[in-house]
Amino acid sequence: MELYTEDYFMREAMKEANKAFDAGEVPVGAVMACQNKIIARTHNQTEQLTDATAHAEMLAVTAAENYLGSKYLTECILYVTLEPCVMCAGALHWVQLQKLVYGASDLQRGYTLVNAPLLHPKTQVVKGVRGEESKKLIDRFFKRIREK
Amino acid sequence: MELYTEDYFMREAMKEANKAFDAGEVPVGAVMACQNKIIARTHNQTEQLTDATAHAEMLAVTAAENYLGSKYLTECILYVTLEPCVMCAGALHWVQLQKLVYGASDLQRGYTLVNAPLLHPKTQVVKGVRGEESKKLIDRFFKRIREK
Repeated sequence: MELYTEDYFMREAMKEANKAFDAGEVPVGAVMACQNKIIARTHNQTEQLTDATAHAEMLAVTAAENYLGSKYLTECILYVTLEPCVMCAGALHWVQLQKLVYGASDLQRGYTLVNAPLLHPKTQVVKGVRGEESKKLIDRFFKRIREK
Repeated sequence: MELYTEDYFMREAMKEANKAFDAGEVPVGAVMACQNKIIARTHNQTEQLTDATAHAEMLAVTAAENYLGSKYLTECILYVTLEPCVMCAGALHWVQLQKLVYGASDLQRGYTLVNAPLLHPKTQVVKGVRGEESKKLIDRFFKRIREK
């Protein structure tokens, strides 16, 4: 019985990242879970929506708020394949996310590069879940871009 | 002839802040201008949209991107009545905003509280335009809230 593990949810997020890859988007995927139920599945859509703020996390946050009818996601866990940027960390702060689980670290844009408590103080953080798989997909994406 | 001054655009942003006030929202307003043309007028709608990320700046960014059909706002100036938060500063980074003009400083949530370069390095910043008027409106809002 392997349901409801961090790896399970991250695999679902990786499916979203692969959808982004196939669509020519920077391959980042996310799922928002509330009491082990997935209430949002999103991937980066900056190209498709012509919107530099349409990161997987922002879309997951607004979809989850809409689903729950609440501005707060205090009982939700966000699984995202790449470390969130400052913008997304700020959004996760405003919704008072319960827990953030991410895969690969983002050494260029990750929120942890900023030496300040950007997330809500109550938000728990787990990193590295399927991090290698996520990093490989992103590397493959940028390799493909460079070869074009 | 007083058109196209910073004060002119900030007065337009203050009109939006007053709309937010009247709607029971934290009174922050914004306008996005491109070559002296206002292409987006927004105010904070976190209550109305049940979305903690629906800040005036985020709405102005997505509206402007949509209007221009571009992910980048490199020739746009954002006028906002309150200093942006970390989330909004991150969004302004992604769109490579040309110039940010804000009114009141936000001593609780302002992006300048974070000791890191959150905006895009090319973004120019002007602060304090109609800052007192903006601060007074916000103070009046929270005073009304407390008295309820």
